[in-house]
Amino acid sequence: MLQLENVYQAAFALKSIIRNTELIRAPKINPDVNLYIKPENLQITGSFKVRGAAYKISRLTDEEKARGVIACSAGNHAQGVALAAQRNNIKSVICLPDVAPISKVEATRSYGAQIELVNGVYDDAYQRALQLKDEMGYTFIHPFDDDSVIAGQGTIAIEILNENPDVEAIVVPVGGGGLISGIAYTVKMLRPDVKVYGVQAQGAPSMVNSVSDGKILTLNEVHTFADGIAVKQPGENTFAMCSKYVDDFVTVTDDETANAILSLMENQKLVAEGAGAVSVAAVMFNKLPVKGKNTVCVVSGGNIDVTILSRIIDRGLLKSGRLAKLSIELTDKPGQLRDMSAIIAKTGANIVAVNYEHAEKGTDINSCIIRIELETKDRAHIKEVRRALADQGFKILN
Amino acid sequence: MLQLENVYQAAFALKSIIRNTELIRAPKINPDVNLYIKPENLQITGSFKVRGAAYKISRLTDEEKARGVIACSAGNHAQGVALAAQRNNIKSVICLPDVAPISKVEATRSYGAQIELVNGVYDDAYQRALQLKDEMGYTFIHPFDDDSVIAGQGTIAIEILNENPDVEAIVVPVGGGGLISGIAYTVKMLRPDVKVYGVQAQGAPSMVNSVSDGKILTLNEVHTFADGIAVKQPGENTFAMCSKYVDDFVTVTDDETANAILSLMENQKLVAEGAGAVSVAAVMFNKLPVKGKNTVCVVSGGNIDVTILSRIIDRGLLKSGRLAKLSIELTDKPGQLRDMSAIIAKTGANIVAVNYEHAEKGTDINSCIIRIELETKDRAHIKEVRRALADQGFKILN
Repeated sequence: MLQLENVYQAAFALKSIIRNTELIRAPKINPDVNLYIKPENLQITGSFKVRGAAYKISRLTDEEKARGVIACSAGNHAQGVALAAQRNNIKSVICLPDVAPISKVEATRSYGAQIELVNGVYDDAYQRALQLKDEMGYTFIHPFDDDSVIAGQGTIAIEILNENPDVEAIVVPVGGGGLISGIAYTVKMLRPDVKVYGVQAQGAPSMVNSVSDGKILTLNEVHTFADGIAVKQPGENTFAMCSKYVDDFVTVTDDETANAILSLMENQKLVAEGAGAVSVAAVMFNKLPVKGKNTVCVVSGGNIDVTILSRIIDRGLLKSGRLAKLSIELTDKPGQLRDMSAIIAKTGANIVAVNYEHAEKGTDINSCIIRIELETKDRAHIKEVRRALADQGFKILN
Repeated sequence: MLQLENVYQAAFALKSIIRNTELIRAPKINPDVNLYIKPENLQITGSFKVRGAAYKISRLTDEEKARGVIACSAGNHAQGVALAAQRNNIKSVICLPDVAPISKVEATRSYGAQIELVNGVYDDAYQRALQLKDEMGYTFIHPFDDDSVIAGQGTIAIEILNENPDVEAIVVPVGGGGLISGIAYTVKMLRPDVKVYGVQAQGAPSMVNSVSDGKILTLNEVHTFADGIAVKQPGENTFAMCSKYVDDFVTVTDDETANAILSLMENQKLVAEGAGAVSVAAVMFNKLPVKGKNTVCVVSGGNIDVTILSRIIDRGLLKSGRLAKLSIELTDKPGQLRDMSAIIAKTGANIVAVNYEHAEKGTDINSCIIRIELETKDRAHIKEVRRALADQGFKILN
């Protein structure tokens, strides 16, 4: 049973391992909210997970430490366990499905973990971890449903309350529920007047649905690019604590999360992963009653593949009119591409990609389609480019 | 004449406006260096410039404050002056050339500045600023060549020395030289044993050349995407201080800077602008004698256009083999695209873009060229894809 003293004990145990990530003012995310970011993406290993893992490990007996720990994860938990074990000079074994991205495997290995690649998917890796635990006597470190892990995550609440005593609301990403359980428990013990809100991805609402139904539900599938919170079923402890201590839950779409990631990059110079940005998305898109309130969004992690980041930037630029994609029908006569380029250049737009195709169904048999990507200033600028092309007789398909 | 007490006075004056940006450990940028980042990209306005501007403004007489201030900049200095003026409830006018990017104009306006768009380039805007200064009695805030501005930037050194008393070297981006003058002066007054190194872009080495020649030189032109440090001529004060207090200067290429930006995103979850990342590039590419040393890189700002960021990511991915571009010659017979796609899918690579072109000079008249962009794991994976395609008879042009 979690006690407040465990959270304080965790804060003490973590001092030499983690950073107290300082709050950062975020005035541009939503001008109606007095918003701060708790940047756990700047935490060592790039996520908050190291807190729970390190406290859990600090509580092991000498005998348990001598045998080592095991975990099953392809993500932030794996890196947290590996680093916490390394700092305590104990062995860690991480089971991962062999389809896990190379970058995540290498990051985990870099913190000194022994990597056990398991043929199959997550469940196969999990079974293998349980088997190794029994065979080798390793202690299994659960990613969320464990009182010590929850106490470790609760240290975030102590830091927030110490640094911002005027806080009125704390917004927290929710996957399995370990992070929000620790934060909500600690906040309600110390400052029951402060609201704690949980945010899940619309495509993975396991805790939202479970709490609203009053019983643990299991999703058949999850659909979200926020892989860090794509959890099918809450834990037993975390379900009970979320039901008791969290004020409300909301969901956000992947598009909203992508927008929040872009806004964090542009306005805060912070790289957040999908799971880490859902809290910001909820405030940005007014999903929570925090207008005018002193609000802290926990950005739980920043371990996102840069290829995904590149796509998120492009999508965000398209949405805000700073990137445009046009398909134009050209007749197969010389000079058309040159003329089109000249018209576009005159508008001040910048062609960054060109695709050239043979005729499609529904277009003139002698024509071909050119698809161009343009850097533009805003939506009005795109209209100007379109009008300039149309005025010179070019047929814009979309 | 700058005195150490000015720097301490600046630190006091800035308390209510700026953040003391905490150092962040950066173990993965260069494993041979005990490296910390001083993240001034997380400073309010996204750069250190607000420090100097705010201290300068705090020193104005009541009469000067009543008249207001003027500056000429399309970048970080403009935002720093605007915000510092806003916080002191005084008027600010910022002259910008009308070709300045909309995003920078809007950011400056958002801090309450009156924007004066001037037809022409930077020099025209500068002349207009001087004219308005004389006509209206505004105080001109120089971006770097001013003792109070330099003292404000020097507060960074106090923060570094307080937080990391074991520091042995501090690495600083250099444009006009205001930032490094403030830091080097303060460091040498307090801790002359600590080395201070300056880094410029290879395409804009105005201070490097001037210091090495022993006199102020003016570059005819500058070539770098690090626009924040693309300065043609050092200031008189900054040249003198750099000559006296800075231990050494080095330059980095734009490619090195782009790599540093990517590494800061991936390993530190920080968005840096080109000017901000040159210090990290210098350490990453072993340009400085800091092996094994407790070293702080000042990342001076993060105000980079996300479209440029997107291109930097792509370039970095190409370099590390996580993105591949192939041109393949296809004969004009049906099913070739399907076959090619199937082979690529089998290797585990992911096609993200396709360009389709008619025959080029030097290829078979009946053929066409397909250019594809692939997400790959690493360079070995790209070789595997190439081999698989070649084995099935596809001709890869590059």
